[in-house]
Amino acid sequence: MSVTSPRGFTAAGVTAGLKPSGTPDLALVLNTGPHRAAAGVFTSNRVQAAPVVWSRQVLTDRSLQAVILNSGGANACTGPDGFADTHHTAEQVAAALQSAGHDTGAIDVAVCSTGLIGVRLPMDKITAAIPGLVDGLAVEGGAAAARAIMTTDTVVKQATVVRDGWSVGGMAKGAAMLAPGLATMLVVITTDAVVDPAGLHDQLLAATAVSFDRVDSDGCMSTNDTVLVLSSGASGVTPEPAALTTALTEVCTDLALQLVADAEGSSHTITIDVVNAASVVDAVEVGKSIARNNLFKCAVFGNDPNWGRVLSAVGTTTAAFEPDRLDVSFNGVQVCRSGGIGEPRELVDLTGREVSVVVDLHAGDRQARVWTTDLTYDYVRENAEYST
Amino acid sequence: MSVTSPRGFTAAGVTAGLKPSGTPDLALVLNTGPHRAAAGVFTSNRVQAAPVVWSRQVLTDRSLQAVILNSGGANACTGPDGFADTHHTAEQVAAALQSAGHDTGAIDVAVCSTGLIGVRLPMDKITAAIPGLVDGLAVEGGAAAARAIMTTDTVVKQATVVRDGWSVGGMAKGAAMLAPGLATMLVVITTDAVVDPAGLHDQLLAATAVSFDRVDSDGCMSTNDTVLVLSSGASGVTPEPAALTTALTEVCTDLALQLVADAEGSSHTITIDVVNAASVVDAVEVGKSIARNNLFKCAVFGNDPNWGRVLSAVGTTTAAFEPDRLDVSFNGVQVCRSGGIGEPRELVDLTGREVSVVVDLHAGDRQARVWTTDLTYDYVRENAEYST
Repeated sequence: MSVTSPRGFTAAGVTAGLKPSGTPDLALVLNTGPHRAAAGVFTSNRVQAAPVVWSRQVLTDRSLQAVILNSGGANACTGPDGFADTHHTAEQVAAALQSAGHDTGAIDVAVCSTGLIGVRLPMDKITAAIPGLVDGLAVEGGAAAARAIMTTDTVVKQATVVRDGWSVGGMAKGAAMLAPGLATMLVVITTDAVVDPAGLHDQLLAATAVSFDRVDSDGCMSTNDTVLVLSSGASGVTPEPAALTTALTEVCTDLALQLVADAEGSSHTITIDVVNAASVVDAVEVGKSIARNNLFKCAVFGNDPNWGRVLSAVGTTTAAFEPDRLDVSFNGVQVCRSGGIGEPRELVDLTGREVSVVVDLHAGDRQARVWTTDLTYDYVRENAEYST
Repeated sequence: MSVTSPRGFTAAGVTAGLKPSGTPDLALVLNTGPHRAAAGVFTSNRVQAAPVVWSRQVLTDRSLQAVILNSGGANACTGPDGFADTHHTAEQVAAALQSAGHDTGAIDVAVCSTGLIGVRLPMDKITAAIPGLVDGLAVEGGAAAARAIMTTDTVVKQATVVRDGWSVGGMAKGAAMLAPGLATMLVVITTDAVVDPAGLHDQLLAATAVSFDRVDSDGCMSTNDTVLVLSSGASGVTPEPAALTTALTEVCTDLALQLVADAEGSSHTITIDVVNAASVVDAVEVGKSIARNNLFKCAVFGNDPNWGRVLSAVGTTTAAFEPDRLDVSFNGVQVCRSGGIGEPRELVDLTGREVSVVVDLHAGDRQARVWTTDLTYDYVRENAEYST
């Protein structure tokens, strides 16, 4: 149930002292081979943190041996000095791994950071912690690594899928995009399958497109979001590309739902299914428009099946639909029928955590699912008090 | 200081009993001529309330004699029956005005509604109140009309600009887009200037584009938003078109700022100036991206000059800029310089209501100003508890 479940991986997590809380804050995942194929998907924010810029660069050869991740500081908007810090971190990890007998260069090491923007990392603490981090690498270290990347997460987030002779594991941090400090989402996925390095990026992209990309808690986009996949090939099994994509998608979806379930300050997990759309693009646009609508999210917090706010959100999209054909259901009760009043809203019970909203566009036969959370007092408090 | 400040207008406001609170909820503005030129700007939401559909139709001849406005119900998503209610309301106003000696047909009467979506209006109460509303029409009635359109507004919103021999007056309701129930914004503007009916719509559009369209409290878009302008020509003065546009813009900006200042649940009014942009379109896109960023808005609520969240919002836009050239100031303190750390954030005092954020894109010489408010506990409470 971790990044070290697939063969060919070790991991570790330690406390470097980056966080005032004194909880673990530095993690390392090592691919012990025999292969090193890797791929990454990063934030599309044009303001990108130094570790994102670095990790993109080192992935140009579609190969990685290790990933170091820190909580306690995003190293974003820190200029050339911040980039030098990231570079230096990778160099130090490579040096420590070399001392431990590995054939590692800085360009084999991806770096991920999460925390407050605009603050330099305390490099002395990271430098001091790296040797111990490498010493601690172990097949049993997956959970420790997953714990060290937590920020406001309340639970460790890991997932594994096991196939015939090969498997995929993963860990994630981020209280969805609802978390404070821009809520960076960091994800490391591992597999012992033998993969085609040239195809791995597209497979990862296909997996994230229907999982992490469908989680939209507040429309905010981090400067640090990173999803990496590392393949050791240690199983010796070469699955069909489609089978690998499916397994990656399962792990990503599992982790994405764990992010939503742990979204800071949320009291409801909302699953929005947009059905009978003219295209998947339309369905996603409509789903995200609802997911980002603050008035809708406040209504769910108040256990109110306010379909008028749903229709209003749908009305801001470019999707194909006729307003007088829209149906909306909350937890199975069709409170809006043909764009007007449907079943009595009193029939809807929204007191549980799980809320299902189904929007029928009556415009085609495509669909998409988007997950979000409600907008609560705790969301405001978390995000108002974080950096002060 | 009202819609009846310009010559040629009367108005009234009464309590029809549409609101449980028992406060005034039905308003009428009458253009007594000699001219009837009019124009309107409406919500761009594709889900449009019945009164919006009706008012668009009756404005096709660029002429209006009266506007009836109700709070206590939006008459949105109410289907053909809801449209019939709007039509019937206009007919009853026309009949009552005919009885009072006016030459009025239903197509001379615009209708505006605000309140909860998906609920039929109690037409019996509206029908019963219309004769008294018409009887009460008076040159002194502007304030009463402005009071009757309030929902969660805490103050009456009116404005006037006086020029040499002619003037423009206006009233508005709506606690910006922050208010509950989709926060419909209803605005009626009057002028006694002699205007060119063919040009009035474009002049109104120019005025709203830099005022109401620049207020973005939560990115939500109502099904009922309406801005109407009525011209009586009673001054006999024909101003230059540009002079009329300027006066309309002044009244619209005055009212827009009153909306922001009274935004429900807000504790800060935030003015975002995006300067040195490559185009006004770029500047507006950047300004609105910041204005809609929940994390930024929560930070301001917490008196935190979190420039990282500003940069993150800028980074999601398509505007021309280089991340390492961005400057951000909060209340005059440049906390972010060249995309990195600037003056100490401790120098910024955000304890007052007014907050100024200036973003310098260093990409051109155009600029735009956008207004928004912070995201607070009270916003969540207002919008979670409204319809339950």
